[in-house]
Amino acid sequence: MRFDHRHLLGIEPLRPDEITTLLDLADQYATYNRGRDKNAQALAGMTQINMFFENSTRTQASFELAGKRLGADVMNMAMQASSIKKGETLIDTALTLNAMHPDLLVVRHPHSGAVDLLAQKVNCAVLNAGDGRHEHPTQALLDALTIRRAKGRLHRLTIAICGDVAHSRVARSNLLLLHKMENRIRLVGPPTLMPAGIDAFGAEVYDDMREGLRDADVVMMLRLQKERMDGGFIPSEREYYHRYGLDAEKLSHAKPDAIVMHPGPMNRGVEIDGTIADDINRSVIQDQVEMGVAVRMAAMDLLARNLRARPKTVMV
Amino acid sequence: MRFDHRHLLGIEPLRPDEITTLLDLADQYATYNRGRDKNAQALAGMTQINMFFENSTRTQASFELAGKRLGADVMNMAMQASSIKKGETLIDTALTLNAMHPDLLVVRHPHSGAVDLLAQKVNCAVLNAGDGRHEHPTQALLDALTIRRAKGRLHRLTIAICGDVAHSRVARSNLLLLHKMENRIRLVGPPTLMPAGIDAFGAEVYDDMREGLRDADVVMMLRLQKERMDGGFIPSEREYYHRYGLDAEKLSHAKPDAIVMHPGPMNRGVEIDGTIADDINRSVIQDQVEMGVAVRMAAMDLLARNLRARPKTVMV
Amino acid sequence: MRFDHRHLLGIEPLRPDEITTLLDLADQYATYNRGRDKNAQALAGMTQINMFFENSTRTQASFELAGKRLGADVMNMAMQASSIKKGETLIDTALTLNAMHPDLLVVRHPHSGAVDLLAQKVNCAVLNAGDGRHEHPTQALLDALTIRRAKGRLHRLTIAICGDVAHSRVARSNLLLLHKMENRIRLVGPPTLMPAGIDAFGAEVYDDMREGLRDADVVMMLRLQKERMDGGFIPSEREYYHRYGLDAEKLSHAKPDAIVMHPGPMNRGVEIDGTIADDINRSVIQDQVEMGVAVRMAAMDLLARNLRARPKTVMV
Repeated sequence: MRFDHRHLLGIEPLRPDEITTLLDLADQYATYNRGRDKNAQALAGMTQINMFFENSTRTQASFELAGKRLGADVMNMAMQASSIKKGETLIDTALTLNAMHPDLLVVRHPHSGAVDLLAQKVNCAVLNAGDGRHEHPTQALLDALTIRRAKGRLHRLTIAICGDVAHSRVARSNLLLLHKMENRIRLVGPPTLMPAGIDAFGAEVYDDMREGLRDADVVMMLRLQKERMDGGFIPSEREYYHRYGLDAEKLSHAKPDAIVMHPGPMNRGVEIDGTIADDINRSVIQDQVEMGVAVRMAAMDLLARNLRARPKTVMV
Repeated sequence: MRFDHRHLLGIEPLRPDEITTLLDLADQYATYNRGRDKNAQALAGMTQINMFFENSTRTQASFELAGKRLGADVMNMAMQASSIKKGETLIDTALTLNAMHPDLLVVRHPHSGAVDLLAQKVNCAVLNAGDGRHEHPTQALLDALTIRRAKGRLHRLTIAICGDVAHSRVARSNLLLLHKMENRIRLVGPPTLMPAGIDAFGAEVYDDMREGLRDADVVMMLRLQKERMDGGFIPSEREYYHRYGLDAEKLSHAKPDAIVMHPGPMNRGVEIDGTIADDINRSVIQDQVEMGVAVRMAAMDLLARNLRARPKTVMV
Repeated sequence: MRFDHRHLLGIEPLRPDEITTLLDLADQYATYNRGRDKNAQALAGMTQINMFFENSTRTQASFELAGKRLGADVMNMAMQASSIKKGETLIDTALTLNAMHPDLLVVRHPHSGAVDLLAQKVNCAVLNAGDGRHEHPTQALLDALTIRRAKGRLHRLTIAICGDVAHSRVARSNLLLLHKMENRIRLVGPPTLMPAGIDAFGAEVYDDMREGLRDADVVMMLRLQKERMDGGFIPSEREYYHRYGLDAEKLSHAKPDAIVMHPGPMNRGVEIDGTIADDINRSVIQDQVEMGVAVRMAAMDLLARNLRARPKTVMV
């Protein structure tokens, strides 16, 4: 089993076989999490610190449970209330925490690249829990595991990523991962929400949902950030729903066994119809959450193995 | 030892022998909590999530300590800061957490019935930590244990519940429990704070504290919600204290060995005189807090046994 | 190994040999914290509650990690959000928590003396994490350990404490400790920030940084509270930095091997030049943070031994 990384900063540096290694291990943790004895010790004796510079109850909870179920001491830092307010810089904050000798640092930050920068300053393993519009690797990995379990494979699938692609780190990490695993990717949404140059990965771009969804195996909806509406990117919720919201009619253009995904939290009636979201024959939205904990356990387990295998270097 | 429930949603569904079973176990935990080795493993391998949609430092702390002392992984969700704000519904939030496979979910919610609704959607054990004006079962159980330890029994006692009965889930759950255990219950307070029809349980209603307290074994004060004053329910704090605040003179009408209770936090000089609250010969207010942790440990232990005894059903 | 105290409320009650005992144990924990198996059990079965009535992400995190690495169940109480707001007094809050049977209570409070008062009301060990302008004993102990490790001894050193001495509990606890250990102490800063009568401990007072730092072994900078500027204590950040901010030129008056300390969080360019703070040959600021966890582990370990050695007395 090879996973040759000190940090998990993005999907970009991962090889396909490393992705498979991680998903295989996560699959085991998914089974384990369904039991009543979630007492693994892979992180026993280790300290995990969750540093969230942006609120995210769901992702933080997922990382927290993942760490606790592996036996880590987990500490949450509400960075809004922290020394940052007292004028301390991001780097000073990171160095301060680093001096407390955490083994795993889980970081979410509103600025693209902030987590990479921070990783260069500390001597523990850093996991990117989302940085600006850059990457959100565990989200892409949990989506991949969900797809693999639902469709039986993770290659040669037609996957439509729909909505606000331009501003979405979820879309970006998914695009990177799904491209590495050799899938056909379509990006569907209003041109104002489509990034320039994203077809570098060979993705096809659609403005029309029915065309974009035709014969898709996977329909991956993105969350619409309400602030886009004020920004003039889309006219109104109602209009958006009419053209790009996923409903039964639009979904009928995808394959009959196509699955529906959403990273949550959902805006029912904006980017997705509630009935579709709740349809257990189509929606794998709850599975995504479930796989989230498993994938984070696998990622932290693999990074911890690497930490133990290597003599600790103290950075100064 | 029988306690045949999947959830603890209220006192209403509990049989008297189940209440006794739970209190007997809590009594053991009360002794255990006084030691320096609070290392029980009844919840080892299990995940407890505290979802508080209403702030309650005290109750949340009590559940958190209870879970940790039984070896659970405990996670607190500050639901005010959560996805709820992003427009997610209660049910979506519950399903999201459920997908992370908690074993025990402790929920406080401002709306009556919200916890019952949520319990129907998840496949873990749900404990109601207070829902609207409906129920607060662990409060009634801790009060019952405090009474039983102080008076040597939990039946045929005369118990005066005083203050804002109409809006109080504490009063409601206590009324249900004390009635099941065959006590004589009196409700004492201003008519504007007395609910219509509550004498269905056979409780006697009094407007006058001296009459209501006459020969009582237990004087249970309720917390006065400050917002009732704006609502026109009572004229002023001062007037309220004069007529319904517990002081030495009013207490002298109860039995000489009557105990004084309050669920906390207290408004000294509004519903209770500070001297009475601090009188260790009469007040069992600190005991109530102590029994709170013990009762919550017993409740979670019993529910966990039922979880382990039953093959896990995955709801979809 | 003797450490004859029930609480750690300040440096004042400690004997020099007790300080040495604590630092020796902390030294061992410092080594232990650098490893990947931080699984000590000194506090196993015990409950630690952190009650912070003043925000302090850094100190709270340090205590939290210290407790978790010693196997305690740790609970953080955000006291701003708590029952205090509902009109409950400090003492009622303390008694409520005490009734939940914590073993260790870590308290920070904005009022001098509040922690001592609270310690008299509870039957667990209390650690002062900073009270008003009074004491901050673990900060002085971590500074002492940092100095001892950097200079090889903790006596007969010339130590300059610079900045806002008058309002600083950090300065006060350090002064007490360094005086007990027989060092030469200088206080350097604007007269408006120098307390009257502090030379009772034999400290020399300087208005001029160059004179105050001459031949010093240790330069200990204090954090400048921004609110002092509005208060008329100092003219402006810029003027303050010019006269009292530590830069290379001013530092050149100290011994060539003098170390630079700061309790954090730093205001770079106000009380200290960023280049000095980051100079690994001079600055021991990260070491201070590292020693912070170790010192808190040692303090809680010693108090826990005393708890276990003594039959528990239940206060009423």
